[in-house]
Amino acid sequence: MALPHAQPMDIISVNPLGDQLPQSVSTSLIKTDRMQLLHLVLRAHQDVPDHRVDDECTIHCLEGEVEIVTPGGVRQLRPGNLVLLPGKEKHALRARTDCAVLYTLLLDRGDAGHGGGTGVRTASDTPS
Amino acid sequence: MALPHAQPMDIISVNPLGDQLPQSVSTSLIKTDRMQLLHLVLRAHQDVPDHRVDDECTIHCLEGEVEIVTPGGVRQLRPGNLVLLPGKEKHALRARTDCAVLYTLLLDRGDAGHGGGTGVRTASDTPS
Repeated sequence: MALPHAQPMDIISVNPLGDQLPQSVSTSLIKTDRMQLLHLVLRAHQDVPDHRVDDECTIHCLEGEVEIVTPGGVRQLRPGNLVLLPGKEKHALRARTDCAVLYTLLLDRGDAGHGGGTGVRTASDTPS
Repeated sequence: MALPHAQPMDIISVNPLGDQLPQSVSTSLIKTDRMQLLHLVLRAHQDVPDHRVDDECTIHCLEGEVEIVTPGGVRQLRPGNLVLLPGKEKHALRARTDCAVLYTLLLDRGDAGHGGGTGVRTASDTPS
């Protein structure tokens, strides 16, 4: 069952999970009409297949190492690295190690216009 | 002189600055029509006075300790904590220690509709 979303003004932790990382799952941290924050947890060598979202987003590596694969090239992110992706940019994620990533999505009235999926139950699936 | 902004798909570091924190200044990391990421560096006991932005934003404490002060209450953020603020929510920041914060702003065609300022030279001032 999905965890309930945080509310605006709630303190949300995106600290490294450390030893808990291997047992952790991806969650949608908070979702409004305008933004959604996803905490993606990937196992080493797990991929998030090609997908795109309508608007811009940022991908912030919190722990471990992950590659962002786009038609224009590959970006290797380590903890403390982030990239801003243009809207509609096709991208996949490749976990080099167990890793956790903060995905900040801009929504249009609660809709990210996902093409493909991150494997996270998102707003339309979960109580907000 | 302001540093040049990063471009979409550039790798941006928001790692803790550690020993360099006291000598560092706030920067605008990247700015598009839709988003702006600010890296705010505050000295202990330095405040960012009350201000508001039109749309939602997130404030993510990267190092040190900072308070987010709103009419509804105070949130104390430590490294790895973040909050999502509703649009038009008046808020001030109070640095409890030297600290660095990642501010993610949603823009409307490059405009955050700032009322008051964060002390960071923003898009209209800096080359993008």
